[in-house]
Amino acid sequence: MKKVVTFGEIMLRLATPDYQRFVQAETFEATYGGGEANVAVSLAHFGLDSAFVTAVPDNDIGQAAINHLRRFGVSTGSILKVKGARLGIYFLESGASQRPSQVIYDRSPSAIAGIEENAFDWKAIFAGADWFHFTGITPALGDRVAEETLRACRMAKSCGLTVSCDLNYRKKLWSREKAQAVMSGLMPYVDVVVANEEDAEMVFGIQAKQSDIVKGTIDDEGYREVARELKARFDLKYVAITLRESISASENGWSGLMYDGSEFYRSRRYLMHIVDRVGGGDAFAGGLIYAFLKELSPRETVEFAAAASCLKHTVHGDFNMVKVSEVMTLAAGDESGRVQR
Amino acid sequence: MKKVVTFGEIMLRLATPDYQRFVQAETFEATYGGGEANVAVSLAHFGLDSAFVTAVPDNDIGQAAINHLRRFGVSTGSILKVKGARLGIYFLESGASQRPSQVIYDRSPSAIAGIEENAFDWKAIFAGADWFHFTGITPALGDRVAEETLRACRMAKSCGLTVSCDLNYRKKLWSREKAQAVMSGLMPYVDVVVANEEDAEMVFGIQAKQSDIVKGTIDDEGYREVARELKARFDLKYVAITLRESISASENGWSGLMYDGSEFYRSRRYLMHIVDRVGGGDAFAGGLIYAFLKELSPRETVEFAAAASCLKHTVHGDFNMVKVSEVMTLAAGDESGRVQR
Amino acid sequence: MKKVVTFGEIMLRLATPDYQRFVQAETFEATYGGGEANVAVSLAHFGLDSAFVTAVPDNDIGQAAINHLRRFGVSTGSILKVKGARLGIYFLESGASQRPSQVIYDRSPSAIAGIEENAFDWKAIFAGADWFHFTGITPALGDRVAEETLRACRMAKSCGLTVSCDLNYRKKLWSREKAQAVMSGLMPYVDVVVANEEDAEMVFGIQAKQSDIVKGTIDDEGYREVARELKARFDLKYVAITLRESISASENGWSGLMYDGSEFYRSRRYLMHIVDRVGGGDAFAGGLIYAFLKELSPRETVEFAAAASCLKHTVHGDFNMVKVSEVMTLAAGDESGRVQR
Amino acid sequence: MKKVVTFGEIMLRLATPDYQRFVQAETFEATYGGGEANVAVSLAHFGLDSAFVTAVPDNDIGQAAINHLRRFGVSTGSILKVKGARLGIYFLESGASQRPSQVIYDRSPSAIAGIEENAFDWKAIFAGADWFHFTGITPALGDRVAEETLRACRMAKSCGLTVSCDLNYRKKLWSREKAQAVMSGLMPYVDVVVANEEDAEMVFGIQAKQSDIVKGTIDDEGYREVARELKARFDLKYVAITLRESISASENGWSGLMYDGSEFYRSRRYLMHIVDRVGGGDAFAGGLIYAFLKELSPRETVEFAAAASCLKHTVHGDFNMVKVSEVMTLAAGDESGRVQR
Amino acid sequence: MKKVVTFGEIMLRLATPDYQRFVQAETFEATYGGGEANVAVSLAHFGLDSAFVTAVPDNDIGQAAINHLRRFGVSTGSILKVKGARLGIYFLESGASQRPSQVIYDRSPSAIAGIEENAFDWKAIFAGADWFHFTGITPALGDRVAEETLRACRMAKSCGLTVSCDLNYRKKLWSREKAQAVMSGLMPYVDVVVANEEDAEMVFGIQAKQSDIVKGTIDDEGYREVARELKARFDLKYVAITLRESISASENGWSGLMYDGSEFYRSRRYLMHIVDRVGGGDAFAGGLIYAFLKELSPRETVEFAAAASCLKHTVHGDFNMVKVSEVMTLAAGDESGRVQR
Amino acid sequence: MKKVVTFGEIMLRLATPDYQRFVQAETFEATYGGGEANVAVSLAHFGLDSAFVTAVPDNDIGQAAINHLRRFGVSTGSILKVKGARLGIYFLESGASQRPSQVIYDRSPSAIAGIEENAFDWKAIFAGADWFHFTGITPALGDRVAEETLRACRMAKSCGLTVSCDLNYRKKLWSREKAQAVMSGLMPYVDVVVANEEDAEMVFGIQAKQSDIVKGTIDDEGYREVARELKARFDLKYVAITLRESISASENGWSGLMYDGSEFYRSRRYLMHIVDRVGGGDAFAGGLIYAFLKELSPRETVEFAAAASCLKHTVHGDFNMVKVSEVMTLAAGDESGRVQR
Repeated sequence: MKKVVTFGEIMLRLATPDYQRFVQAETFEATYGGGEANVAVSLAHFGLDSAFVTAVPDNDIGQAAINHLRRFGVSTGSILKVKGARLGIYFLESGASQRPSQVIYDRSPSAIAGIEENAFDWKAIFAGADWFHFTGITPALGDRVAEETLRACRMAKSCGLTVSCDLNYRKKLWSREKAQAVMSGLMPYVDVVVANEEDAEMVFGIQAKQSDIVKGTIDDEGYREVARELKARFDLKYVAITLRESISASENGWSGLMYDGSEFYRSRRYLMHIVDRVGGGDAFAGGLIYAFLKELSPRETVEFAAAASCLKHTVHGDFNMVKVSEVMTLAAGDESGRVQR
Repeated sequence: MKKVVTFGEIMLRLATPDYQRFVQAETFEATYGGGEANVAVSLAHFGLDSAFVTAVPDNDIGQAAINHLRRFGVSTGSILKVKGARLGIYFLESGASQRPSQVIYDRSPSAIAGIEENAFDWKAIFAGADWFHFTGITPALGDRVAEETLRACRMAKSCGLTVSCDLNYRKKLWSREKAQAVMSGLMPYVDVVVANEEDAEMVFGIQAKQSDIVKGTIDDEGYREVARELKARFDLKYVAITLRESISASENGWSGLMYDGSEFYRSRRYLMHIVDRVGGGDAFAGGLIYAFLKELSPRETVEFAAAASCLKHTVHGDFNMVKVSEVMTLAAGDESGRVQR
Repeated sequence: MKKVVTFGEIMLRLATPDYQRFVQAETFEATYGGGEANVAVSLAHFGLDSAFVTAVPDNDIGQAAINHLRRFGVSTGSILKVKGARLGIYFLESGASQRPSQVIYDRSPSAIAGIEENAFDWKAIFAGADWFHFTGITPALGDRVAEETLRACRMAKSCGLTVSCDLNYRKKLWSREKAQAVMSGLMPYVDVVVANEEDAEMVFGIQAKQSDIVKGTIDDEGYREVARELKARFDLKYVAITLRESISASENGWSGLMYDGSEFYRSRRYLMHIVDRVGGGDAFAGGLIYAFLKELSPRETVEFAAAASCLKHTVHGDFNMVKVSEVMTLAAGDESGRVQR
Repeated sequence: MKKVVTFGEIMLRLATPDYQRFVQAETFEATYGGGEANVAVSLAHFGLDSAFVTAVPDNDIGQAAINHLRRFGVSTGSILKVKGARLGIYFLESGASQRPSQVIYDRSPSAIAGIEENAFDWKAIFAGADWFHFTGITPALGDRVAEETLRACRMAKSCGLTVSCDLNYRKKLWSREKAQAVMSGLMPYVDVVVANEEDAEMVFGIQAKQSDIVKGTIDDEGYREVARELKARFDLKYVAITLRESISASENGWSGLMYDGSEFYRSRRYLMHIVDRVGGGDAFAGGLIYAFLKELSPRETVEFAAAASCLKHTVHGDFNMVKVSEVMTLAAGDESGRVQR
Repeated sequence: MKKVVTFGEIMLRLATPDYQRFVQAETFEATYGGGEANVAVSLAHFGLDSAFVTAVPDNDIGQAAINHLRRFGVSTGSILKVKGARLGIYFLESGASQRPSQVIYDRSPSAIAGIEENAFDWKAIFAGADWFHFTGITPALGDRVAEETLRACRMAKSCGLTVSCDLNYRKKLWSREKAQAVMSGLMPYVDVVVANEEDAEMVFGIQAKQSDIVKGTIDDEGYREVARELKARFDLKYVAITLRESISASENGWSGLMYDGSEFYRSRRYLMHIVDRVGGGDAFAGGLIYAFLKELSPRETVEFAAAASCLKHTVHGDFNMVKVSEVMTLAAGDESGRVQR
Repeated sequence: MKKVVTFGEIMLRLATPDYQRFVQAETFEATYGGGEANVAVSLAHFGLDSAFVTAVPDNDIGQAAINHLRRFGVSTGSILKVKGARLGIYFLESGASQRPSQVIYDRSPSAIAGIEENAFDWKAIFAGADWFHFTGITPALGDRVAEETLRACRMAKSCGLTVSCDLNYRKKLWSREKAQAVMSGLMPYVDVVVANEEDAEMVFGIQAKQSDIVKGTIDDEGYREVARELKARFDLKYVAITLRESISASENGWSGLMYDGSEFYRSRRYLMHIVDRVGGGDAFAGGLIYAFLKELSPRETVEFAAAASCLKHTVHGDFNMVKVSEVMTLAAGDESGRVQR
C-alpha cells in the first residue's frame, strides 16, 4: 500500500448549524480540519496509508483532534503534544444563496506555530513513504513552521518522495510579498502544484487574463496561461487548477484543469448544490495524489480529482469521506444521484 | 367511507440526519416504513379507512412500529405480534447533489418473513373492504409470505375487492427469475399495476426502448409500449408508470403515465427540490387508489397521483402526510409554494 | 444617530424544524417576530437607534419576547407589560419545493389587542425620533389598536417625523371593507407606502393588470400603474412595491420597484434559494427606511432595500440579521456567495 | 375488554428542554396532555379500550393532538373538530433541586371551552363502556363545559357506568366558591373520588389537620380524616388520596392512601428521582381505574395505583407509558432498577 | 433604580452537552460568561440597572457576546470593540457523580488583556452609579488590566461608589505572590470582600484551620477566623464567604457566612442536585450586592445571597436568571420545588 | 508498552436519548460497544497498546464500528470484514429512579457468529502481546465462535500470555447447562476470572449465600465463598467480583472484591449517581488488567479497578473514556467532584 505524509495545522472547526448566523448560534458543531489533514483523510478513505504530522496541545482538545483523524483512518503517531499550548480555531458560518459563508480565524497562537527548532524527525516520518504533501498555509504559520516545511521538503526529496503543494494563499496569515519569498524557496522541491483560480496570482503574481471571479465565469484560456507559466517558472511535473464558478453560496460550478507540460486535460464540469464547500480544494488535491499513485492516465487523473472534490461539496465537515468506487462512478458520468440500495 | 387493506413488511428506518454519511452519524432518526404501509398512510391522510396487515415482534420496537402507523391514522388491529422475532431495519444515508442516497438493508430474518402457515384470517380482514394493495416486495420476503400473498389475492377477489400491485422489484431480495415466476402467479388476481421505469423490465423482461435511466432522460414512447405490453399480457384494467428523471440526488423530474387500454394519460411534469425521495412511488400508488375509489376521471386520476407523490418528495420519512386539498391545489397547477396563512 | 420607532404586535413564532409537517413535529423552534418588530431589528443591525412599541404579557413568555428584541439591539423601554394577558402565537410549517409553507395564527386575544385607551405616551416615545413605521397589521388587531395607531400617526406628524406604512393586508384579521375604511383614515399621515403584489388590491382595490400571482410571473407595467394610483390617491412622497415571483417554496424571484412621482426605479432581480422567507417584506421596508435616512439616491435606495430583503431569505427567523456592508456588497452586484475569510 | 371513557381538555404542552428557563429556551418540546387524556393513555397502555372525548380546532395543531392520542392507543373517534377554534396551551419550565417547575397557562379561549350546547352524544359515546372518568378541571373550563360534564355524568349513571372524579383544583380556572358549587352538583353521580393533598380543602373546605405541604411532611392521620369526611359527605364507594412529599423539585416522596368506608389502605412509599412529575396524579387515577376494573383487592389496588404513578415520574411528557407487568414488578417491591435484558 | 457597574472579561463558553466528555463531543453549547459579567446579569434580573465594562473583538463573536449580555438585560454601551482581537474561550466538560467537571482555558491573548493604556473613561462610566464590582480575575489578566482596575477603583471611590471584590483566585493566571502584591494594592478601595473557601488562603495566605476541602466538610470556626482576619487586615465593611461542601459533582452542600465586624451571620444550608455549578460564587456576590443596595438586614442579606446562588446551581450557563421573588421564596425556607402553576 | 488483545462481538448500540421510552423515541443515539471491545477501549485510554478482534459486515455500518474503535485508540487491523453480513444491534432504553433500563437484543445473525472455521490467525494476532481477554458472551455466540475462543486461549497460553475471562452470563444467548459445559472447557487456560454478583451461580452453580440481588444488599461473606470456590475449582491466580447494590436505576452502590488465594481485598464503596451504567463491569475488568500489567499491589489493583469502573458510570456509551490520572485521584479517595480548572 502506498504511503503519503502530509504536514500542517489542524484546527477546531466550530460551525453554526443549519445556516445560522454567528449572532444566532446557541451551539457549534465541533469537528476538526485543515488543508493538509483534509488531504490525509481523503487518502485514507481511498485505502492508502496516510499520516498527518502536526503539533497539538497536550490536553483533551488536542486529543479530540487526534481522535477525529484516527477515526477517519489517518495515522497520528508522529503528532507532537505540546504542554500549555492551544489548538487553533476557526469559526464557520454557513451561507446560503446570496449570503456568503463567513470564516473567522482564531488560530494564533497555536501549538504548531510554537514548535521548537527541528521539532520533527522527518527521516523517521518518511520511512516507507511515497509522497509528501503540504499547502501554502503551513509555511505561512510562522518562520519556525516555514523552516520545518523546508526541512521536510529537503528530506522528502532526499528520500525519493514525490512532493506536492497546494498554493492555498491566505491573506490573513501573510502578505503577498512574504508568501512569494517563502514559497519560491520551497518550489524547487515540489513536483506537483495545485492551485485555485486566485492562488497563482496572489502568491506568484501570475494572473489569469479576462477572468472575473466574483462574476463566477471561467475563462479557460486564461487558466491555461497560468498553468503554463507556473510549470515553466518552477520546472514542475504537473500543474492542476481547480475552477470554481461561484453562482451563489448554494450553487457552484466546479471542474479541474491539469497540465503536464504538453497537453491540457479538462475535467467534466459539475453543477453542485452545496452542502459544505470547505475542503473542496483539499479533496481535489487528495484525488490527484491518489490518481498519481495509482498511475491513472492524466485524463483519468483530473477526472478522478474533480469527481472526488465534487462529492466533497455534499459532505459536512472538512473531511471528504468518499470511497474510490463512489468517485469512479461519478467520474464515469453518473450524476443521477439515484438511490443505491 | 371506502376501506383499503394493504399487506407487507414495515421496517425500522434509521436515517442519518442532515445529509450525514453513515461513518459520520452519531444519531439516527427513527421512523418506520415500507411500501405497503406507506400506501396505507397516504390513504388514511386522504380520509379513507385504511388498514395495514403485517407481523411485528412482540417487543417495544414492534410496538413503536404499530404506534407510528396508528399515529398517522392506519388501523393496526390485524397486525400479528410474534414472540422472539425481530423487526427488519433499513439504514438510510441521505444523498445530495451528485452523491446518491444509500440504503443498507438489514431485513432478514424478520417477523413477517417468519410467519406461520395461514397466519392471517383474510376473510375477516377483508370484511367491509373495497380494495387490496400489495407490492412486489411482499412475496419476495420468502415463500411463506408469497403463499400468504396468494391467499390474500384469492380471498380479495372472491370478496369482490379491487386488487392493485406495485411491481417494486428489489434485487437484494430475489432473482429476476424467481420474481417472474412468483409475480406471474399473482397477476391473474390483479386489476391495477403500478411500476416505475425499471420494474417491468426487471420482473417481466418488458423493456422500454431507448431510455437511459442514469441519464435521467425520459422517452415517452418507450414507456407507452411497456404499459401496452403489461396490460395485454395480464389482462389488467389499468397500468400506471412513474417517470423519474434523476437529475441529481437533490433535483428530480417527476410525472406519471396511465393507460386504460385505449388512451394514455400523461400528468404534468414536476421539477422537484428533494427533501426525502423514499416512498415517492408508494405515494403515487396511494394517490391512484384514492382517485379510483373516488371515481375521478383517468386524467384526474393520474394528475392526482402525480401531484400527491410530488408532494411526498418534500416530506421527511416514508409516509406521505398530505391532505386531499393540498394535492388538488397542486394538481390544478399551483406550484408557486406561496405561504398559506 | 437617527432614531426610528415602530409599533405593532410581536408574536411567539413556533416553527417546525427542518421542513417537518405540523403533524410530525416533536419540537418547535421558538423565536419571536412580527412585521414592525422585524423592521426595528433590521434597523438596529444597520446601526440606527431603533425602538419597538407594543404590549406583552407580564410573564416569562412576554419577557422572552423582550429579551429576543433586546438581544438583537432594539430598545424595549416603551413596551407595556400586561398582567394576565397572553402573547399572540403563530405556528409555522416550512414548505419546500411544491409544498407551500403553512402559517396557523393563534393571535387572539393578545396583550396588544387588549390595551387600554391612550395606553402609550407617544409624545415621550417620539422624543428625539426621526421616523415612525407601522404596517396594516397593527390597526387590524382591533379598534383600540387602530385608535392607538391613529394617535401615534398624529403625534408623529406633529413631532415632525416621517411616517411609513407597509400595507400588509391580512385577510384573517379583517375584511377588505374594514381595512379600506381604517387604512384610508391613516393614509393622510403617511409619507411612504410599501406594498407587495397583492396589498394594494386587497386594501384599496387598486389592481395590477395582467398579473397572475400564482403563476409567479411579474408584469412590470401593471405594478407601475398601482404605484401611480397609490401615490396620487394619498399624496404620498414614495411608493415602493416588492415583486415576488413564486417559482416554488424553495426558489423565488425577488426585486423591488420604487416610484417618486416622476420616475420608476427597478432594482436588480434576485433568484433566491430560500432558507426562510417570512419577514422578507419587512426586511425590504427596513432597508428602505435606512436608505432614506442615509439620504441615498432613489436608485440606491431601492437597490439597498432589495438586497437587504434578498439576504433576509437566507436567515432563519423573522429577523434580518445583516450588516450594511453585506447589503452594500450584494447591492453592488456580488451574488457569488464566495466564502469570506 | 373493559372500556373507559374520559372527558376533558387536551392542551399543547410546550416544555423547555433540559431544565432550561423560559427566558433561555430556543426550542420547545411539543407534546400534548391534560388530566383526562392522561388517564385515557394510562389505561390504553394497560391494555384496556379507552376513549377520550374533547373538542379540538379543525387545523393541523388539533390534528396533531389527535395523532398524539392515537399513537398511544386512545380512541379518538368522538373528538369534535371546531373550525376557527384554537387549542389551549401550557408552557412548562422544568425545575430542578430548589427551583420549582413553572407552568404558564394559555388555555383560554379553547375549542373545548367554546363548544355548543349538547355538543356530545353521550349515549352513543358510552355504548359498551364500563367506566367514565373526569377531573375537576373539566367543569372549571366554563359553564357550557360544566353542563356537558353534568350531562355526561347523568348518562353514565343511567347506562350503568362507574364514575370517577379526580378533584384536581385549579385556582387559575375558578374560585373556590364556584368550584364547590359546581362540584357539589356533580358528586351525586360519582362513585370514586381521587384527590391530592390540597384538593379536598380547596374544593370542599375539608382540611387535613397538621400537615404542611411546603415542608413536604405527611401526616397520615390528617388525610384519613379527609377521606372519611369526603366519603361520608358524598356517599362515595372509594376515596383515594395521593401523598406527595415535596423534598425538592428533583426528589419527592410518593404514596397513596385509599379508603373503602371501613379500612384504610396505605401503599408503599417511593422516594423518587424525578424526570417529569406532570401527570403523576393522573397516572395514579389511571392505575386505580385499571385495578378496579380488574377487580384487584383494595390493597392491591392502591399499590398498583401508587406504583403506576411512581413510574410516571420517570417518563417525559404527561402520558404514562408503562405496562401492567412493569407496574406489577414495582408494586411487588422491586425498586432496584436493574437493567432488564 | 440603583446602578451597578462591573468590570472584567467575558469569554465564549463552549460546554459539552449532557455530561459528554471532551473526546466524545460533536457539538458545544455556546454561551458567554465571566465572573463580573455574571454578577451584572444577576443584578439585571433583580431589576437593577447594571452595566458591564470589557473589551471584545470587533467581529461577530464579539458581537454575539454583547448580544448575550443585552438579551439578559445588561447595559453594554461602554464595551470596547477591538479590531483584530480575539475573545477568550473556556471549554467546559460537565462532570457527574465522582467525575469532576473540567475547565480548559483558552483565554490568552484576549481583547481585554490587550487594551491600551487608559482605555476606559471611568468618570463617564460611573455617572449615576452606586456600586462597582470586580473580581480577582480581572487584575490577573495582565498588568495593563490590573492598572485599569486600579484606575477604576480610584475613580469609583472618588465618585462615592461602594466597591466590592470577589477574590476569585485563579492559579492558571498568576502566582500567589503576584496575586498578593496586586490585590493588596486594590484592597484599600474595597468595602466588601467575597471569597470562597480557598481564596483567602491563596491570595493573602489566610488559612482556615482544620478544614479539608476535598473531604467536603466545613469547619465553621475556621472560616470565622478567616473573615475576622480579612476584615481587620484591610479595614473592610463586610466579609462574606461561600461554603461549598463538595459531596460529588452532582451533589453539593452550600451556604454563606457574613461578618460585619461584630457578628457572624450564617445562612441556611442547601443540599443541591447540581445542573450547572459554574457561576455559583458570582451569583452569591450578585445577591449580596442587591441586598446591600436594598438595605436588607445582615441576616436577610446573607440569606438572599445564599438562596440566589443556590438557585444558580439549577440554571444552565454562567448566568443566574432568577427573579427576586424566587430568591425570596427560597430564602424564606420553601425548598419544596412544588410546581408553580 | 504492554499489549492486550480482546476478542468478541461489537454491536451497534441504539439508545433512546434523555430517559425516553422506546415507544417515544424519534431518534436513537448511535454508538458501538460490546464487552470485550469496551475493555480494549479502557486499556487504550490507560495508554496501553490494545487490539480488538472481531468480524463486522463489509458495509458502512461495519466501517462505522471500526471507526468508533479507532477513534478511541484501539487497533483494528485484525478485524474481519464479511460481505453480506450484518452487525448485531442492541437497543437501550435508559431507565431512571424506579424504572429499570431495558435492553432489546437484535444480535443474531451477526458477522461474528457466522465466521468460517479457523477464521483468525491467532499466532499473528498475539505477536508481541502480553494479555488476552474475553468474556462469557463470546463463546455464547455460537459453536463456531466458541471453537475460535478455545483456539485463541490455547494459542495465548502457548505464546505465554496471561488470559482473563469475565464470566458475563447472558441468559438470552445460551442455557446454564450449555454455558457450564463450554466455559468449563475454557477455564483451564484462564488465569484471572472476573464475575459479577450473579455470574458464578449462573455459569457454574456457585451461589453466594444470603444475598438478595433485587434488594440491593450485599453480603460480603457470601461473595468470599464464591471467590474461594471459583479459585479452587479452576486453579485460578485471581478472582475478582464486582458488587453492585441496585438502589434504583439512578443510584447504585459499587465496589470490588479480589481474592489472590490467600487474602481478600475489598475496595472502597462508591455511591453513584448514574449517567450510563452499561459497560460498568467491563470497565472494572479493564482497570484490573491495567493494574496487573503495571504490577500494582493487590490492594491497589482492586482499588484501581473499582475507581475506573465507578467513573464509567458517569460516561455516556459503553466505552470508559477515563485517564489513569483520573482513576488514581478517585482511588486515592477524592470523590468531591470539584471543578478541575
